[in-house]
Amino acid sequence: MTEMPVEILLVEDNPNDAELSLYALRKFKIANHIRHARDGAEALEYIFGSSTDSEKPPVQLPRLILLDLKLPKIDGQEVLRKLKSNESTRTIPVVVLTSSREERDILETYNLGVNSYIVKPIDFEQFTQAVRDVGLYWLLLNQVPLANT
Amino acid sequence: MTEMPVEILLVEDNPNDAELSLYALRKFKIANHIRHARDGAEALEYIFGSSTDSEKPPVQLPRLILLDLKLPKIDGQEVLRKLKSNESTRTIPVVVLTSSREERDILETYNLGVNSYIVKPIDFEQFTQAVRDVGLYWLLLNQVPLANT
Repeated sequence: MTEMPVEILLVEDNPNDAELSLYALRKFKIANHIRHARDGAEALEYIFGSSTDSEKPPVQLPRLILLDLKLPKIDGQEVLRKLKSNESTRTIPVVVLTSSREERDILETYNLGVNSYIVKPIDFEQFTQAVRDVGLYWLLLNQVPLANT
Repeated sequence: MTEMPVEILLVEDNPNDAELSLYALRKFKIANHIRHARDGAEALEYIFGSSTDSEKPPVQLPRLILLDLKLPKIDGQEVLRKLKSNESTRTIPVVVLTSSREERDILETYNLGVNSYIVKPIDFEQFTQAVRDVGLYWLLLNQVPLANT
């Protein structure tokens, strides 16, 4: 049996936010194949495999990565740096989904080459709408190279 | 009288596509202050002024740039390269809006650090919807550094 390719990699350590994001993505039928990583190390291992050889091609190319910033083990900015400094993974759209409105975080994240920066709404309804809108935009409207599909 | 800051810089040489984009952005009340540049040179001069001193800060920081790729004088990829290699303009979201589905264009544009790549729908209704969705996403949902607002 061939495994279906993962459309979205959700990197989120907060169980409530993760559950709500998964709920919204499924409810609005944005994606069927979602992988949830609970920290930065798990996310990088999922993309690059367990090899430490940075020359090796990635083992997974999700169509979209939703990335929290404050993460255990390896933080979101370090994950972003690794993704955007590798030619094969640079083309994966990375949307930061964070509770931080801090100017320093926003600036640093853009300087690392994030595609988009979304502040998580506090309200339940607004949160699910935002996740829906993000999913629809990046999976339906935005175009990625064929290699990523 | 103080001039209101420009929210969107539309860089588009095709008069029909420009008119349709401006129509959609105004119809759906996405933005009131839109600047239209007809080629890459006009876009760069608008952002950086007429100075050739690359150390000088940009004179305009629109909240969003909608950029066609095939442009007279200076093409879209060169405009993108200039915007993304300057620390002050790197944080401006740049959405490429093009008729090209060519893998080479998509790959090169992502490698230059584009935020998003949209293929122009051919159908009139779908085109205006796409422009509306792009505008709503980048002006309402996406967060940029305070310096850009």
